[in-house]
Amino acid sequence: MDSITMSIDEALALCQKALVASGTEEKNAQLVAGALLRAEAEGQKGHGLSRVPSYCAQVRTGKVNGRAVPVVEDIKPGLVRVDAGFGFAYPAIELALPELAARAKTVGIAAAAIYHSHHFGVAGHPCEDLAQKDLLAFVYGNTPSALAPAGAKKKVLGTNPIAFGAPQAGAPLIIDFAVSTVARGKIMAAKQAGKNIPEGWALGPNGKPTTDADEALRGSMVPIGGVKGAALALLVEVMSACLAGAALGVEASSLFDPDGAPPNLGQVILAIDAEALSGGHFSPRLVDLAAVYNSIEGARFPGLKRLQNRRKAEEDGLSVPIALAGEIMKLAT
Amino acid sequence: MDSITMSIDEALALCQKALVASGTEEKNAQLVAGALLRAEAEGQKGHGLSRVPSYCAQVRTGKVNGRAVPVVEDIKPGLVRVDAGFGFAYPAIELALPELAARAKTVGIAAAAIYHSHHFGVAGHPCEDLAQKDLLAFVYGNTPSALAPAGAKKKVLGTNPIAFGAPQAGAPLIIDFAVSTVARGKIMAAKQAGKNIPEGWALGPNGKPTTDADEALRGSMVPIGGVKGAALALLVEVMSACLAGAALGVEASSLFDPDGAPPNLGQVILAIDAEALSGGHFSPRLVDLAAVYNSIEGARFPGLKRLQNRRKAEEDGLSVPIALAGEIMKLAT
Repeated sequence: MDSITMSIDEALALCQKALVASGTEEKNAQLVAGALLRAEAEGQKGHGLSRVPSYCAQVRTGKVNGRAVPVVEDIKPGLVRVDAGFGFAYPAIELALPELAARAKTVGIAAAAIYHSHHFGVAGHPCEDLAQKDLLAFVYGNTPSALAPAGAKKKVLGTNPIAFGAPQAGAPLIIDFAVSTVARGKIMAAKQAGKNIPEGWALGPNGKPTTDADEALRGSMVPIGGVKGAALALLVEVMSACLAGAALGVEASSLFDPDGAPPNLGQVILAIDAEALSGGHFSPRLVDLAAVYNSIEGARFPGLKRLQNRRKAEEDGLSVPIALAGEIMKLAT
Repeated sequence: MDSITMSIDEALALCQKALVASGTEEKNAQLVAGALLRAEAEGQKGHGLSRVPSYCAQVRTGKVNGRAVPVVEDIKPGLVRVDAGFGFAYPAIELALPELAARAKTVGIAAAAIYHSHHFGVAGHPCEDLAQKDLLAFVYGNTPSALAPAGAKKKVLGTNPIAFGAPQAGAPLIIDFAVSTVARGKIMAAKQAGKNIPEGWALGPNGKPTTDADEALRGSMVPIGGVKGAALALLVEVMSACLAGAALGVEASSLFDPDGAPPNLGQVILAIDAEALSGGHFSPRLVDLAAVYNSIEGARFPGLKRLQNRRKAEEDGLSVPIALAGEIMKLAT
């Protein structure tokens, strides 16, 4: 037996208990556990339960302040800044979303910049939350550096996701992807399995394409579309690190290693009242666009798989590797 | 002799005269000619003088209303809508930019949606204009469909550019690229030269990769990064067609053919007061990021080539193919 089945609620409670036992304040632990389980249930395991051990370790060493209370600062009618207090990102995002929604409804558009922050999980989640409040949303956030700029060997930029959500009947349209060709986790998995990786995923430390997983991890990830993907990663870095006034990817410490200074990552969230800006045309036009997709063989709006995964997890529970489940249980006791 | 050299001012005057002679109102002609020459001088010939004959033809048939007066509608403190009146896009953009800048300074962030619009040229230009007013900017705009969604054969989405500008000492940082692997113009050029195109640029009408330029033009362009690039093109379509309440790429008529209904394209422009949102950290952090790039062999911020091209064109003039120059001269007389 390699894995056990847990209900989402069981896993949530366990996760929360592990975080509290490590020194996380009750409400913060609830928000963090909620975000991790939401990712896990959607099949985004890299942002799910696998994070619990490293999160707990970082709270224990104080690299993450488990008791941080995020603070909102009013800047202008459409702008707020949120100091995450070197705690987890999720409580800061939780605080920012209603502020953003209220301002976007009044002003028509609003932005929140979160600084002194940490790993923010699935970038599509805050987009989904805002889209469910009838707002169009973008989330920008940086990560420790993993990609080299076009033409260079040294990694500078993060895997910096593009995340976008639009209100839509049924479930929001969500677009959420990292600008690297594949997730770094796939290379880690290849290394653990002692396998090579396909060409095109990564460069070695010498800046040349490699199929060796270990060389790849010491080198850099390849962005989608070469120069264009590297430019996209730069755009996200400017929109997160620079615009939040946070650490650059090259300055940010590891999101896994419990030692060192806090990573001080930045996230920026935008919310737009789409119906107002479009003169009431947004929803009907999105319906028309979806109809075009649905009329074409092979085409579909992205983001449907997360819904299927979530439904399946709600019905059948989560399959958790016993090594990970045991580790979380030990942390919770 | 295949080409003649003209100064930017000569070409500008000629271009303006051709537009006026075709029925474009004086001030509109000035703005359109200015935008085309700015593109031409930066080496973006696909958005430069090559457009003059098709622009003039569309004014003559009434597909573009050369006498349109764009109208701004106030929606919310951070939102405006601009009706381009089925005229050229440039006068509508010209009207939107100061509105946006004023609102972004007061509210902190603002958006303009332009509808009943047309080809909007270099997407980076409005970004550059706003960045020169110390605002961070995004421009989204759709084009007649040219790309197939991931997994499909039929083209649905445009080459929909990603355009971003950030204020920076010296010259703004500009990121501006189409989500297709290459510009459609490169395939047209290959067809004219009777050459094959490399694999990876386009699909034939059967949805399979092709190296035949003619098949490629009847088929669809390949987006960068496969599924991810197609998602990016969808994001831009939602941010332009749906959010402006304009035509979808599949509905929009040709930007070259003088016959048919107006294309009714949409553009959305966002402006953000970066210094305010960042708590004054934006400029210093961007300087730090640029320093990281400059310290790495082979790395550089994108968008520098446009400045070099512009400087060269100002000094040496523009080289214009005699066939094109002759055609524009004929239109101007």
